[in-house]
Amino acid sequence: MIIVMNPKSNQMQIDDVINVLKNSGLGVHISQGTERTIIGIIGDKSVLRDIPLELMPGVEKLVPIVESFKLAGKTFRPEPSIVNVNGVKIGGKELAIMAGPCAVESYDQIMEAARAVKRSGAQFLRGGAFKPRTSPYAFQGLEEEGLKLLKAARDETGLQIITEVTSEKAVELSIPYVDMFQIGARNVQNFQLLREVGKSMKPVLLKRGSATTIDEWLNAAEYIMSEGNYDVVLCERGIRTFETATRNTLDLSAVPVVKNMSHLPVIVDPSHAAGKAKFVIPLSRAAIAAGADGLIVEVHPNPMMALSDAAQQLSPKDFDSLCSDISKLAPILEREFCYYG
Amino acid sequence: MIIVMNPKSNQMQIDDVINVLKNSGLGVHISQGTERTIIGIIGDKSVLRDIPLELMPGVEKLVPIVESFKLAGKTFRPEPSIVNVNGVKIGGKELAIMAGPCAVESYDQIMEAARAVKRSGAQFLRGGAFKPRTSPYAFQGLEEEGLKLLKAARDETGLQIITEVTSEKAVELSIPYVDMFQIGARNVQNFQLLREVGKSMKPVLLKRGSATTIDEWLNAAEYIMSEGNYDVVLCERGIRTFETATRNTLDLSAVPVVKNMSHLPVIVDPSHAAGKAKFVIPLSRAAIAAGADGLIVEVHPNPMMALSDAAQQLSPKDFDSLCSDISKLAPILEREFCYYG
Amino acid sequence: MIIVMNPKSNQMQIDDVINVLKNSGLGVHISQGTERTIIGIIGDKSVLRDIPLELMPGVEKLVPIVESFKLAGKTFRPEPSIVNVNGVKIGGKELAIMAGPCAVESYDQIMEAARAVKRSGAQFLRGGAFKPRTSPYAFQGLEEEGLKLLKAARDETGLQIITEVTSEKAVELSIPYVDMFQIGARNVQNFQLLREVGKSMKPVLLKRGSATTIDEWLNAAEYIMSEGNYDVVLCERGIRTFETATRNTLDLSAVPVVKNMSHLPVIVDPSHAAGKAKFVIPLSRAAIAAGADGLIVEVHPNPMMALSDAAQQLSPKDFDSLCSDISKLAPILEREFCYYG
Amino acid sequence: MIIVMNPKSNQMQIDDVINVLKNSGLGVHISQGTERTIIGIIGDKSVLRDIPLELMPGVEKLVPIVESFKLAGKTFRPEPSIVNVNGVKIGGKELAIMAGPCAVESYDQIMEAARAVKRSGAQFLRGGAFKPRTSPYAFQGLEEEGLKLLKAARDETGLQIITEVTSEKAVELSIPYVDMFQIGARNVQNFQLLREVGKSMKPVLLKRGSATTIDEWLNAAEYIMSEGNYDVVLCERGIRTFETATRNTLDLSAVPVVKNMSHLPVIVDPSHAAGKAKFVIPLSRAAIAAGADGLIVEVHPNPMMALSDAAQQLSPKDFDSLCSDISKLAPILEREFCYYG
Repeated sequence: MIIVMNPKSNQMQIDDVINVLKNSGLGVHISQGTERTIIGIIGDKSVLRDIPLELMPGVEKLVPIVESFKLAGKTFRPEPSIVNVNGVKIGGKELAIMAGPCAVESYDQIMEAARAVKRSGAQFLRGGAFKPRTSPYAFQGLEEEGLKLLKAARDETGLQIITEVTSEKAVELSIPYVDMFQIGARNVQNFQLLREVGKSMKPVLLKRGSATTIDEWLNAAEYIMSEGNYDVVLCERGIRTFETATRNTLDLSAVPVVKNMSHLPVIVDPSHAAGKAKFVIPLSRAAIAAGADGLIVEVHPNPMMALSDAAQQLSPKDFDSLCSDISKLAPILEREFCYYG
Repeated sequence: MIIVMNPKSNQMQIDDVINVLKNSGLGVHISQGTERTIIGIIGDKSVLRDIPLELMPGVEKLVPIVESFKLAGKTFRPEPSIVNVNGVKIGGKELAIMAGPCAVESYDQIMEAARAVKRSGAQFLRGGAFKPRTSPYAFQGLEEEGLKLLKAARDETGLQIITEVTSEKAVELSIPYVDMFQIGARNVQNFQLLREVGKSMKPVLLKRGSATTIDEWLNAAEYIMSEGNYDVVLCERGIRTFETATRNTLDLSAVPVVKNMSHLPVIVDPSHAAGKAKFVIPLSRAAIAAGADGLIVEVHPNPMMALSDAAQQLSPKDFDSLCSDISKLAPILEREFCYYG
Repeated sequence: MIIVMNPKSNQMQIDDVINVLKNSGLGVHISQGTERTIIGIIGDKSVLRDIPLELMPGVEKLVPIVESFKLAGKTFRPEPSIVNVNGVKIGGKELAIMAGPCAVESYDQIMEAARAVKRSGAQFLRGGAFKPRTSPYAFQGLEEEGLKLLKAARDETGLQIITEVTSEKAVELSIPYVDMFQIGARNVQNFQLLREVGKSMKPVLLKRGSATTIDEWLNAAEYIMSEGNYDVVLCERGIRTFETATRNTLDLSAVPVVKNMSHLPVIVDPSHAAGKAKFVIPLSRAAIAAGADGLIVEVHPNPMMALSDAAQQLSPKDFDSLCSDISKLAPILEREFCYYG
Repeated sequence: MIIVMNPKSNQMQIDDVINVLKNSGLGVHISQGTERTIIGIIGDKSVLRDIPLELMPGVEKLVPIVESFKLAGKTFRPEPSIVNVNGVKIGGKELAIMAGPCAVESYDQIMEAARAVKRSGAQFLRGGAFKPRTSPYAFQGLEEEGLKLLKAARDETGLQIITEVTSEKAVELSIPYVDMFQIGARNVQNFQLLREVGKSMKPVLLKRGSATTIDEWLNAAEYIMSEGNYDVVLCERGIRTFETATRNTLDLSAVPVVKNMSHLPVIVDPSHAAGKAKFVIPLSRAAIAAGADGLIVEVHPNPMMALSDAAQQLSPKDFDSLCSDISKLAPILEREFCYYG
């Protein structure tokens, strides 16, 4: 951290700041510029957490130099992490593909979806049992009944199950049924929930919020990791911008940027960003080409009959075509993906 | 809702759409333009919730005409609502001023803050017992101990107590101690939490999220109201934009816009938007001039010693000066505010 | 400027950076932290403009400490500037009100508008002769014919004339007819045009672009000022955000923020931000309460007949009511405004 | 266009609106809903341009149904356009690669850059002679001298020359030297300039502005096309959002979205969006995978010595590696690219 003093600050004010820092056990480095004095702080800045330096007379601003997260950062672990979900690895050479319907609707629907996505090469089945919806009058999910259907699909297909949890109660209910938790965009700063999934010690897919900076997103990962659970996979799913032609603006730059700042794996959700099935395939290809470790894609056995987000769900046929594309792209990008088509 | 057909759609596709609508018991109005056919829907659109019209062949897009919320809208109640918190009214002629520290820190701190804000004319004491913080390593609040201190401040001063709740457990714990719940910006789409404060039947201050449209915000209010709790006050607190000179961009247009769409009272939080105490006073004056029904302002007996958000908390002296300004502005705007200074 | 070295940088890399700086005649201050080395630069950084320090091995990032603009900043001139337009002052105690139609349409229209706004207290008549329109098929302005009509209105009423210029040719054509140039939001980074109005030595109203940061806006002012023309007035008119309920999001925080960074006067255009006449009055009041030095408001003698932006133009009656409000707010804010109503 | 009447509008108001439409020669379709009346307009809406329907009593809002652009849209030309620049085609099967330094700096620099990018397969040389810079004190380009150097590079290598023009004067000066004009992001709504490049009848690369919606961008293309010049290529280069980890947020969704709305070719500029060379390669791959018709990439023979935007320019070696990647991706995407490496 650097403290920039106001051009009008006097020596007494500068001395006061220095004294506060030294009394906190920190080292201090003074740099006297032509216009301003700058004070560098040396040592563990966490002791400063409760000292409002920016209010001290003569202080103009504080400039952070080091990131605010620790466990999620590359300083903590320089090599990429691989998250292991019952033997399926995310972040290694193999691309991870998660697919399935927006919401679990019925036994037949989830089974048909599971078989279809398995057939094309997906390793994970996704499906919502607890649905956060903008309107209180929209379909809110089958809850525990949905979890049971997901487990039935795992028992038959061997796919790993990932599902969104939206409350502490949902975490508790889901533990026996699922292999990986998903924290949705709207809950990325629901800190109580982050702690809960942290404590669960199950792998967590952490979606970026629609207005979450990369720094805040990695701090959200830090909440989970600070409970001892390091199995966090990040998921870019679009941010909110002025452009309304797509539901959200998929920020694919986030893939290389996060890989430059963090050791955690990053996958991409093209379905929620695009909002329309016809844009999902080109954006999926682009995500893999940008270096993503995998995808989470909405696939419905019959999109016309879907109870939520119908417009953005791929048909099994389109998903198969996507997997075929991915299998051709993978070797060029030094990745692997096993397409059974 | 209006369905816009693709210029290339054929009569069979148009007939299919019409049949789906009629089979759902809806009326249909066909408008044959020079380029496109447009189909208007007449009747209760809620029956369409589960029919993915946008996927039907030949359909180009759906255009909503009516808002998605009901209870929060002016069609439901054309006259402004007044929320009554133990006799203190929000949304009537009198301006409601809520003030107090970011976080409850100690008996002395909260008592000193309470006496100071009461002296200048505030009717509500704010203070956080559960603090949502970006970093897991920052101060997270005194929790139930903080609630007890707030109650002690109410017992002495008679101020109404408002505090943020961040989880179902926090709601449960807070019920005996507080007069009004606050839902913070990060939880505006934590739907489970919205339902909980709805069920509590206590008045709720609902902050806008930093990336929440006005339409989504009113839908969030709808979640609370759909549980039978109509005592909702909205609070604009800044949205996230590309501009970084302020923490958030205070959207004061939201005040007249919301008053045009909804009957609910709207207040403004200038502290979180500005992020700096020196901008709080001009923005508070602007909020009142824009037609806000009140303010929620951070005031700390000694901002230099605050454990969180120090830079944006007003001193009691600055707050008194703000209240004096408000008392002069009020009559020009046909409002009332009783300043004791 | 501060150079933050990568945690993995070695001493040779640090020495290389230091040598480049010293060879450029700059002073250097090294701060050895626990994790990183930070290099402060002392002296005139303009010699560094052409040296890509961020590409040198071992450099992690550059952190600017001082603003990039000079003449527009408070270091150059700590006291507020007053821009004098033929005796009418902007930035002093008196509020400056500019009003008139979006576009000049006819002799009768501009005369009627001029008389009406003069009557209520405006000191400036606005009216577009060159209209930048999103679609090439929309009305583009009367050009020189419009300028003549504006001059006729000045001759009769004594109002100062302000008009937007959109090209070098428009600047040249307008010089004999107008008292103040307006640079519109879309041209805030049309640097050639900024230089032209700088050379003209006429006062300039510089609107903020819809995606322009405050720092870029002040740099745009710097372009004009670097030609020797210091008579620049800034105008906040709304920025582009995700919210679509208003045409743009009026950023009233920009008023106190700019006043904290610059000596230039700041006025507000509530008409373009709101996009609807009914929101113009509350936002105008808010702008003045936030500390703006004036307003530029669209007023049309008969909004129903306007050829452009009809929805956002006030009627003379509404404008009169706004001026009456302003005259009551002014003394509370220690400003003056002479309302003749 | 659809007119939505207010729920409180009365029959007389509805009749007034209908009469205005009929008197303008338009057909009218009334749809009487349970809550509101909706009026559909049939015929050429351009006659309505100057009638402020939104101000008529009882009107709540207007809902546009058809896009505002014509020549740029798919209704005008359903098949993809191919822009032919002296035999080099953009928008066909072959990918178009434009590369070269941010600014033309010297004979040696531009020659070395031209030879390098030619060697790897680029068909176009880019290089700025007129540089729009945020600060008036930054390097502004060699102007005509730069144009001559670009021509010399074409004479030797046969590369097509593309350069940015920032004013009418720059257009005039550039005509004899260059093969394709570039309109930069800051000038996307400099309508005078758009008309000038339209009149020149040279092919134009039109960058999206950092706050330009896709609809506005296509309207900007319409300005050029309405002068009779249909040789327009669109270029996505990142939009301004709240995220500051990259200079701009590259909106790759824009590629399939524009291809769905327009027949014009679309290429991508990953350099300005990323702002850092290390992110340019993954984003280039992603752009091609998303379906872009080509790339425009900054390449400098010695980025360490660049006079502008040093951090984002690739070295010839990195560019060669990028071209090698592109040549491997092309066949998978049913495109062609001739890499000479």
